[in-house]
Amino acid sequence: MRDAVRADPAEEALGPGREFDLIRRLVAAWGSRAQGIGDDAAMVSVPPNEHLVASIDASLEGVHFERAWLSPREIGYRAAAAALSDLAAMASTPLGMLVALSLRDDQPADVTSLAEGIGEAAASCDCPIIGGDSTRGPCLTLTITVLGHAARPVRRDGARPGQLLYVTGTLGGSGAALEAFLRGTTPVPAHREKFARPIPRLREARWLAEHGASAMIDVSDGVASDLAHLAAASGVAMEVAMERLPCVTGVDPVRAVLSGEEYELLCAAPPLDTAEFSRSFGISLTCIGSVTRADIAAATFTLHGERVDPGLGYDHFSR
Amino acid sequence: MRDAVRADPAEEALGPGREFDLIRRLVAAWGSRAQGIGDDAAMVSVPPNEHLVASIDASLEGVHFERAWLSPREIGYRAAAAALSDLAAMASTPLGMLVALSLRDDQPADVTSLAEGIGEAAASCDCPIIGGDSTRGPCLTLTITVLGHAARPVRRDGARPGQLLYVTGTLGGSGAALEAFLRGTTPVPAHREKFARPIPRLREARWLAEHGASAMIDVSDGVASDLAHLAAASGVAMEVAMERLPCVTGVDPVRAVLSGEEYELLCAAPPLDTAEFSRSFGISLTCIGSVTRADIAAATFTLHGERVDPGLGYDHFSR
Repeated sequence: MRDAVRADPAEEALGPGREFDLIRRLVAAWGSRAQGIGDDAAMVSVPPNEHLVASIDASLEGVHFERAWLSPREIGYRAAAAALSDLAAMASTPLGMLVALSLRDDQPADVTSLAEGIGEAAASCDCPIIGGDSTRGPCLTLTITVLGHAARPVRRDGARPGQLLYVTGTLGGSGAALEAFLRGTTPVPAHREKFARPIPRLREARWLAEHGASAMIDVSDGVASDLAHLAAASGVAMEVAMERLPCVTGVDPVRAVLSGEEYELLCAAPPLDTAEFSRSFGISLTCIGSVTRADIAAATFTLHGERVDPGLGYDHFSR
Repeated sequence: MRDAVRADPAEEALGPGREFDLIRRLVAAWGSRAQGIGDDAAMVSVPPNEHLVASIDASLEGVHFERAWLSPREIGYRAAAAALSDLAAMASTPLGMLVALSLRDDQPADVTSLAEGIGEAAASCDCPIIGGDSTRGPCLTLTITVLGHAARPVRRDGARPGQLLYVTGTLGGSGAALEAFLRGTTPVPAHREKFARPIPRLREARWLAEHGASAMIDVSDGVASDLAHLAAASGVAMEVAMERLPCVTGVDPVRAVLSGEEYELLCAAPPLDTAEFSRSFGISLTCIGSVTRADIAAATFTLHGERVDPGLGYDHFSR
């Protein structure tokens, strides 16, 4: 029953069975990033007087990515980074990650690379991998639950009139890469990088929370759609001047406002020191608008003073 | 943008978008069992000085069930109950559930029934539904993360020589139903019920922990396989007298020991008052063997005194 990857007693203790052979391969790829895997459930300690924050996020082949677009390592990295971004959106600190993998029978060779990508994203956010599930299935699926802690999580419902709207980093790269992939062409490297290797803005989120951000969301559906979520949850009117959007080279604001899966942060806050933010994190923080009223819940957009309807982005590329 | 199921301000606050329309249908089906859904992540408070316990569990059409075998409500119930059973295995108390649903485009009509089944299992365990994710996909998939708390979670690694091995309820029904489904016949009602509507043994698990159970697992792969996991994790030898297995009518011990997805509890404990257990919970608690040695990790089985190799059950029905 022995196999080559049973390197240490913790792996040995997983016991026999085909599913456990796969788990042993994952654990071997994760190394010290995997902690306590093998029981029915993982155990986590939440700091006293802090909330646990939890989110689940699925990445499916054919829905969120195509295998032709990304390497297995990138697929793993991107799925884990997208999940971790939900912890950033709440200004929380990662505690652990649970990974449910569904693999086609003809894809076993990819497991180590997938695991390495997941492990890379987890390590970049100091997030141990504490458990999981694996099964065969009709498409490659990574469903990742992230757990974090925060003394005062930042929700979507705290935006108030008089606050300004800020977004981190630059927008449009992920959407432009997706458009190129869907056309069958090769995205420019900067756009592809944004699509394939999004960076969860965890430290940035805590800075924003410490400096007064009271409503926050990560840009997963596109600024147009995500701002509408923020406005709806907070019950306020928000106005964005689209010409202020920090667009990547080669993308205009009309496309950038619809670009999803950017994993930048969008927040409502008092006036912030954007220069200090940039010095601290090496990315921009841009004021793109303001919260104007509390008597109506709506997000409106202007371009050089003209009111425009940007649309609502896409649910996923397949619609 | 309004639709009929936006019944209250909490649903309204979800904002626009196709995915949110699906979430609104789920939230409407769950009613008061859904709490706080709609932010980037859910917030949970863990009791002071207790551990958080977390597990993720995937149920896929074609791997864990076929749609022809179960109603949508049963599919939802069974997936959630299977996940909750992992909290029982750790003797923990549910705090919340995150539900990732992947649906085929031609299955939207099933969503309410699926959600009702998930909600029924959650309600039966006093477990609020605190978040989720939804997407289309090539098969119906329910990936459920359960969160619980326990002052002293019972793990797999605490079995010690001199302890006895106990199992709750009766075994073999789930496997017999699966065999019937795979043959294309109709399972007898008692077997089908065990397959379609497993009951997470949460209260029973806490009783067992309070009475000294120091290693525990839920029977998901079959007693033969799960006992091997327990023995491997604890580093002990376990011996089971198969004729003692509490089998359902129509199933012999040789089949019952391989029957998976039973979601009964298997534990190592000092001698227990099985009559008191039965009076308290209305199901049996049966001593099936003992922990014999600590110098070797193995599970061995006898039938009427003869050593037998039961095999290792199945990973899933499809291999």
